[in-house]
Amino acid sequence: MKKLNVVLVVIACLFSTSLFAQDIIHDAEHYVLKKQHGDNWATEDEDIDAKLKKLEKKHGTKPNIIHIMWDDTGVGEVGIPEIQKLRGFETPNMNQMAEDGMNMMRMYTEPSCTPTRADAMTGRYAVRTGMHTVSFPIENSGMDAEEVTIAEVLSEAGYSTAFYGKWHLGDTESSYAHNQGFDEAFFTPYNQVPSMWVREAEANNVVTGLYPELYGEDIYDIDQSWKPIGYVWTLEGTKGGKTYEWGAPPAVPNFWDIDKECEKRTMEFVRRNAKANKPFYAAYWPTVTSFVPDARSSEKITANKNVLQEGLVKVDAFVGELLEELEELGISENTLVIVMADNGPFTHHGPRGMVETLYTGGKGDFTEGGIRVPCIATWPGTIEEGQIVGDIIHITDLYTTFARLAGATDYIPRDRIVDGVDQTSLLINGDGYSRRDYVMVYQGDNLSAGIKGRFKRDWKNAEPGLSGAEFYDLYTDPREDNPEMIQQFHTKSMFKRQKERHLLWIEKYPNRPDATPGIPLQGIENVRPETEKLYHAPFNMDDLPFDLKEVMDHELPFVDE
Amino acid sequence: MKKLNVVLVVIACLFSTSLFAQDIIHDAEHYVLKKQHGDNWATEDEDIDAKLKKLEKKHGTKPNIIHIMWDDTGVGEVGIPEIQKLRGFETPNMNQMAEDGMNMMRMYTEPSCTPTRADAMTGRYAVRTGMHTVSFPIENSGMDAEEVTIAEVLSEAGYSTAFYGKWHLGDTESSYAHNQGFDEAFFTPYNQVPSMWVREAEANNVVTGLYPELYGEDIYDIDQSWKPIGYVWTLEGTKGGKTYEWGAPPAVPNFWDIDKECEKRTMEFVRRNAKANKPFYAAYWPTVTSFVPDARSSEKITANKNVLQEGLVKVDAFVGELLEELEELGISENTLVIVMADNGPFTHHGPRGMVETLYTGGKGDFTEGGIRVPCIATWPGTIEEGQIVGDIIHITDLYTTFARLAGATDYIPRDRIVDGVDQTSLLINGDGYSRRDYVMVYQGDNLSAGIKGRFKRDWKNAEPGLSGAEFYDLYTDPREDNPEMIQQFHTKSMFKRQKERHLLWIEKYPNRPDATPGIPLQGIENVRPETEKLYHAPFNMDDLPFDLKEVMDHELPFVDE
Repeated sequence: MKKLNVVLVVIACLFSTSLFAQDIIHDAEHYVLKKQHGDNWATEDEDIDAKLKKLEKKHGTKPNIIHIMWDDTGVGEVGIPEIQKLRGFETPNMNQMAEDGMNMMRMYTEPSCTPTRADAMTGRYAVRTGMHTVSFPIENSGMDAEEVTIAEVLSEAGYSTAFYGKWHLGDTESSYAHNQGFDEAFFTPYNQVPSMWVREAEANNVVTGLYPELYGEDIYDIDQSWKPIGYVWTLEGTKGGKTYEWGAPPAVPNFWDIDKECEKRTMEFVRRNAKANKPFYAAYWPTVTSFVPDARSSEKITANKNVLQEGLVKVDAFVGELLEELEELGISENTLVIVMADNGPFTHHGPRGMVETLYTGGKGDFTEGGIRVPCIATWPGTIEEGQIVGDIIHITDLYTTFARLAGATDYIPRDRIVDGVDQTSLLINGDGYSRRDYVMVYQGDNLSAGIKGRFKRDWKNAEPGLSGAEFYDLYTDPREDNPEMIQQFHTKSMFKRQKERHLLWIEKYPNRPDATPGIPLQGIENVRPETEKLYHAPFNMDDLPFDLKEVMDHELPFVDE
Repeated sequence: MKKLNVVLVVIACLFSTSLFAQDIIHDAEHYVLKKQHGDNWATEDEDIDAKLKKLEKKHGTKPNIIHIMWDDTGVGEVGIPEIQKLRGFETPNMNQMAEDGMNMMRMYTEPSCTPTRADAMTGRYAVRTGMHTVSFPIENSGMDAEEVTIAEVLSEAGYSTAFYGKWHLGDTESSYAHNQGFDEAFFTPYNQVPSMWVREAEANNVVTGLYPELYGEDIYDIDQSWKPIGYVWTLEGTKGGKTYEWGAPPAVPNFWDIDKECEKRTMEFVRRNAKANKPFYAAYWPTVTSFVPDARSSEKITANKNVLQEGLVKVDAFVGELLEELEELGISENTLVIVMADNGPFTHHGPRGMVETLYTGGKGDFTEGGIRVPCIATWPGTIEEGQIVGDIIHITDLYTTFARLAGATDYIPRDRIVDGVDQTSLLINGDGYSRRDYVMVYQGDNLSAGIKGRFKRDWKNAEPGLSGAEFYDLYTDPREDNPEMIQQFHTKSMFKRQKERHLLWIEKYPNRPDATPGIPLQGIENVRPETEKLYHAPFNMDDLPFDLKEVMDHELPFVDE
C-alpha cells in the first residue's frame, strides 16, 4: 500500500505542472452541486473578484488572515451570551465579534484535535492525509512532508506566515511547523496531555505515570524502555532554519507560559508585518484548555470555575487586545479574524465541566456534539455585521477560502483531493451563500456518518441489510435523540449515492493510510540527553532481532493506533 | 383531611382582616434571604416606588400588563436567534423583544400545563392549591373558588381583566375563568388533547378513542358510560354573567379558530381600555401548539415544519401586531409585556419535533428541561433594553410582581402561603436583583428536587440513608448528565434544612390535597344535550349503590390522578 502510494504521488507530480491550470479536485459531492449552481457561482465570483481588487487597491496589500483555534468547545459556549449566562462565564470580546461579524452556526470540524488541525493545514479530510487519529507523546510519526499546507500556499503568494501554539501534527522533524511552510513557528508537537504528568494534576484525578516520582515503587514494573521521558513541550524555529526546544517539561507554570509567549509573539508578528505593509497569515492555536487549573492564578475569574471556561475567558481577553491592536495599526478593515474551536467538548474522560450544551456527544463522537463548533469571523467593512448564518461550512473550507483571498488559489495542489471549497461568497454575501451542503464524518479512518443539508445518516450503527432507525432530521431533532426510519426513507438512496461517489473518488485518489512514521524529536539544536535517548526507543536496535527502521517501514494491517 | 382544610380556611378567614396589614406569607426559604438582604430590599423599594409614582403621573394610570404564555417550549427556542438557526425557524418579533427588553434565562415554571397555569393565577405552588396534576376531559374538578387569582387582586385595584385562550384549570362551574375574577373570558377548560380526537390526527399516530367513528366496531367494548362525548372546547362569559359554549368540537378547523378569535378579542380589549385610559391585565394563553398540523394552512411557514415551531411563528406574528398596536395607541411605555412558555418541551409522547434543546428532560420532568422556559419581558423606558439576566425567577413571582406594579399588594391574601416574591426590582434594576435563589420542584404532589442558586439536589432518586450522586452544579453541568457526590457535599445540609423549613411551613399552612371536585361543565346557557349527559356521568346515580356526590366528597387516599 505504501509503495503504491509513493508511485501514485510520483505519477501525480509528473502531471502537476500541466494540471495546475485545472480546477481543484474536490470531493465527488461537490460536482453534484456545481452542476446545479456553477453558473450562479461564476457570476458571484466575478463580483467577489471586483470587490477584492477594490479592497486591495485601498489597502495596498491582500488581506491579512488571523486564525485562532482552541480546544474542545461546543456550539453555543462562545458567541451566544444567553448560553454563557447559563454556564456562569462570559467572553465579551468574542461575543462582540459575533455582533460585529458573522456567527457561523454550522462550522463542522473533525471529531478530535489532530485530525481537525491537519484539515485546517491541508484543506483535506484527515483520512486522506493519514492524520485521522489523535497523537500522543511519543508518537514516532507526523504529517507527511508532501502535504501542502496553507502556509506553503500563502507563502507562494508573498504572505508572511507564523504558527504559535498547539500544533499537534506529529513529532518527526519533517512535520515540525516551520518545516511545513511557516516562516516562523513556536509550537507544541503534542497536545496538553503532558499537563497531566505533574503532581498538581493529582487533584483532578488524572495524573498518570510518566515520571517515577508520580508513583510509588512497583516491583512488577520491569519494562523501562517505552516511557516517554524526554518528550519536548515546545519547539521553535524558522523556515529553513534550526529547531530549538523552548523551556522544558514537566512543570505546571511552564504550561501557562507557553500561551503567554504565543500571545506576545503573535502580537509582535502582527505589528511587524503591519508596519512593513506585508500581508500575513497568523495561526494562534492556544493550548489554554488544559487538564489542570492554572496554579499561578490566585483566584478564579469565572463563576463556572472549570478549566475550559477559565481558559476561554483568557483566550477572550487576548482576542480583545488583538482586535484593539489591529485597530491601532490601522489594518482592521484589511484583516479577516476567525476564532473557533477544533472539536466538541471533551465529554468522555475529560476534565470537570466539559459537558454537552446544545448537541449530543463530544470529542471523538460522530454526532453533532463532536463535530460542530463555535466559529466567529470578523472583517469590518467586508463581512457585514450582526450575521447569524445557518450554512454548512467545513474546517477544510478555510484552506481554500484563505487561498482565494490571498490570490493564491493556483498554488493549491491539483494532484489530490482538496475537500475545502471556496467559501468567500459566504463571507461576503452572507446567509445562504455556502457552496457546501454535505459533510462526510469520519472517526479515525471509519466513515461513520453522512450529512446532507438538514439530513444525517448514521452508517456506524446501521444494521446490515435493513435501513433501520439511522436517519436524522437535524432541524426536528438537533440532539439526534430520536432516530427515524419511515419519515426519512426519501433520503436513503441519496445517502447511498453520496457514499458511493465518495468511495469511488478515494479509489481514484487514494488516502495515506497513516501519519508518516519517523524518528521522533530529531534535529533539535539544544536537545536534552533524555530526548536523544528517544531516537532509539522503544528498544535498542542492536539488541533486538528487528530494527526500528524495519518496524516503521511496515504498514502492519492490524495497527490502528 | 378535607374537613381539616375547611376548618383551617375558616379560622384563617376569621383572622384575615386583621392579617391584611401584615406581610405576605412566603415560603420559608424567603425569610433566610430576607434576614440577609431585607435592608437593601427596603432601600431599593423606596426608589422603585418613586419611579412607579413618576410613571403613573406621566401616563395617568398604573401600568398595563399583558401576559402571553404558550405550551411546551424549551429555553433557547425563542429569543435566541442563533439557536433558531439550528432549528430551522424564526420568531423575529419575540427575538426583537429580547433585544428591546429583558431575556430571562432562568424562569422556572411547574413541569406541566395545569400546575403552571394555577401558579400564575394564584402565586402559589400548584401543590398548595391542589392543582398539581394535568387535567383532561372529563375532569370533574377545578380550581377552588377560595383561591384568589391575579384577576381578583388586580380588579380590586381598578384594573380591567381579560382571559383568552387555554385556561386548563378545571371543568367545574366555579373554576371557569370569568368565575375566577376575570371581567371577560374566552377560554378552553381543557388542554389541546381534543385536537387528537379527530380523523386528521391519525397521520400523527396520536388519534385516540373518543368518538365511535374513530374506531371500527369492537364487540368487547361494553362500557359506554365513561367516554367524554359532550365535552366542550371553548366557553365564554363575563364576570357575574352567563356562560356560553363557543363553537362545538370536534373539528380541526375549529381548533385554529380559537386562537384567531382570542387574538381578535385580545386586540379589541387592549384598544378599548387604552381608549378609556383604564389600566388592564390581559392574559392571552394561545392554544396554538397542538398535536395536529393546521389543516387550513396551504403551506408550511418554517423549514422546521413541525407543529410547535409552526405554532411559535404564528404566536410571534401576533406578538408583532400587538406591539405595533400598543405603539399606535401610545401606551407602549406604560405596558409590561411578558411572553413565555408554560413548561419544557413535550419530549415524552409528544408530537414530532418536541425535543430537548439546551436542557435534559421535558414536560413532566423535574430536570431543568421540564421546568425552565423561555421568557422575555419588555416595558420600554422602564425595563432597560438588551438585558440577558441569569437570576432565578419563578412563575408565581409574576403574581406578586403584577400586584406590586398595580398598587394591589394589599389585596394578596395573608391567610395562606404565597410563593411568588416581588420581582419588581429585577425588572427595573436588572441582572442580579432577583429576590429568589431557590425553587422547590414538584411533580404532582411529590417534592422531587430542590434548587438553590447554581446547586440542585435530586430528592426523587435519592438512596435512603446514603447521599449518593444526587447533586448538580448547574453551571458546570447544565444538562444534569453527571450527578456528583463528593464535590457537592457542602450543599447537603443546606438542602436538608431547605426541605425541613419548607415542610414545616406546609404543616402550618396545609395544602389542598387535590383540585376541588364537582359536576363538570354546568351553567352553560346554550348547553348541548350530550354535554348535559355528563352531569350524571360516569354512571347513573339512581342505578348504583353509591352516588356521585358521595364519591366526590371522599378524598380517597389512593387516588392520585
